[in-house]
Amino acid sequence: MPDTDLAGTYRRYIDCLNRQDWPALGQFVADDVKHNSRPFGLAGYREMLERDFREIPDLYFNIELLVCDPPHVASRLRFNCAPAGTFLGLRVNGRKVSFTENVFYAYHAGKIAQVWSIVDKAAIEAQLAGA
Amino acid sequence: MPDTDLAGTYRRYIDCLNRQDWPALGQFVADDVKHNSRPFGLAGYREMLERDFREIPDLYFNIELLVCDPPHVASRLRFNCAPAGTFLGLRVNGRKVSFTENVFYAYHAGKIAQVWSIVDKAAIEAQLAGA
Repeated sequence: MPDTDLAGTYRRYIDCLNRQDWPALGQFVADDVKHNSRPFGLAGYREMLERDFREIPDLYFNIELLVCDPPHVASRLRFNCAPAGTFLGLRVNGRKVSFTENVFYAYHAGKIAQVWSIVDKAAIEAQLAGA
Repeated sequence: MPDTDLAGTYRRYIDCLNRQDWPALGQFVADDVKHNSRPFGLAGYREMLERDFREIPDLYFNIELLVCDPPHVASRLRFNCAPAGTFLGLRVNGRKVSFTENVFYAYHAGKIAQVWSIVDKAAIEAQLAGA
């Protein structure tokens, strides 16, 4: 059975991102968080997210599938957005693209301690090639 | 709590792939399986896997993280292998690369009915660029 509280905690984290409520980020993300093995810490994690929103002005996180098995959460996120310039090394230049991210989280003491994320770059490449 | 039976079923599926035991694949994969929304069916799914092993002779699936929340399984797979030629459109040409796949499965009646997979193409590109 899913831990509905962990699912709820995760959904509130995603809401926080979509509100760009950066002062609240520390309620959901640990001070020593690692992202894809990089020891970003909370400040570096926030910088990454702020940069994402700067580069993708209409960025919005949609949870397509949520799999909870404490202390882990796995989430398939869907994005429909228009990165302003280069994204993942691809010249998107304001085109609307749709892509997913499959991402795992390890929680510790109620906060995200580790993240292992893969964005579907090949899907964006295919959309740009078909332009 | 994880459904240990579903976790066990999934681990037996991965063992089946690593043995390349294709006659047994139908014990784990539904006849009408879809992969990234493509209605491959069991025969098409087997073809995809056989092609993978042909193009990557030392292919081996390592489960790095398993998140079970019936009827869903999310798995982070690690590969250390040497694709013989082009892989994901990249000219790997026998170089040893290490990369991950974050993949979700929906089970139905004890078998994999849907798969949503993303392979970390950017990680392979970075390794080839650093060659």
